[in-house]
Amino acid sequence: MKSTNPFNPNLDLTFERVIEVPRELVWRAWTEPALLKQWFTPAPWQTIECDIELRAGGVFRTVFLSPEGERFPNAGCYLEIIENEKLVWTNAMQPGFRPTFSSNETHADFPFTAIISLASQGSGTKYTATVLHADAAGCKKHAAMGFHDGWGKALDQLVALAQRL
Amino acid sequence: MKSTNPFNPNLDLTFERVIEVPRELVWRAWTEPALLKQWFTPAPWQTIECDIELRAGGVFRTVFLSPEGERFPNAGCYLEIIENEKLVWTNAMQPGFRPTFSSNETHADFPFTAIISLASQGSGTKYTATVLHADAAGCKKHAAMGFHDGWGKALDQLVALAQRL
Repeated sequence: MKSTNPFNPNLDLTFERVIEVPRELVWRAWTEPALLKQWFTPAPWQTIECDIELRAGGVFRTVFLSPEGERFPNAGCYLEIIENEKLVWTNAMQPGFRPTFSSNETHADFPFTAIISLASQGSGTKYTATVLHADAAGCKKHAAMGFHDGWGKALDQLVALAQRL
Repeated sequence: MKSTNPFNPNLDLTFERVIEVPRELVWRAWTEPALLKQWFTPAPWQTIECDIELRAGGVFRTVFLSPEGERFPNAGCYLEIIENEKLVWTNAMQPGFRPTFSSNETHADFPFTAIISLASQGSGTKYTATVLHADAAGCKKHAAMGFHDGWGKALDQLVALAQRL
């Protein structure tokens, strides 16, 4: 059974766009490390490492490289996986569902859960990314980091990648 | 696919016992609110409220009543559900997988994930409860609260309940 979406406009951010990419390709771009590394971070940032264990509790780990050459590791785990349809992951838990140490010093210094939803629309996909936060402060921080612009540019890169595949 | 068990003796607590209760009954005791309220807290503590939405991301909420009449609410969500075999839940996320506000003032002031594993053994069940913590401090705090004694007494109550059913 699919989990419900608890979107709350005071706590959460959402991004939606229809793209001319079949959802099976969007799914591959999100779940194959070799593909994800090509689009996940808006250039000139890069994603230089990616581990994916595609099951509930499995690792989702990336390392971002800033234009200045600084590494930013991110680690979390998957929570729900419905192929070609829904992918839920969080940085609030580590692999095996271990809660994340609250003062851990990773790039993501606020906990969130990301819900990627894919629905077929014509020959393309309605792509919805919803990010849940624990509190309004985390939400504001994420928005101020450029959530909408960042996810939009990354999605542009995903579309460009899909056209090359 | 089942998640792996990331047990780490420096961070985690585990409790194992073979009980003369079929695992289908243990499962019911863990997943039916009317039953759970009868065994979950060692007497004279009581569990006076219980909400269960048995799906990944679904609510698991209880309210404990101390012998002095003080209410202690607990809220979290389920992470993995394999009927009669494995139940995983956490207080580190709220329903819909929303991360728990880190300074929230509930009874559980450290995040944990509980993994209940049931395996048939003769006419009974090998019952294993593993609790994962974010750090050693959380683990020590949970141990000092009487983890082994508490889970043992609660399980005695579960066995007594099963004999009445």
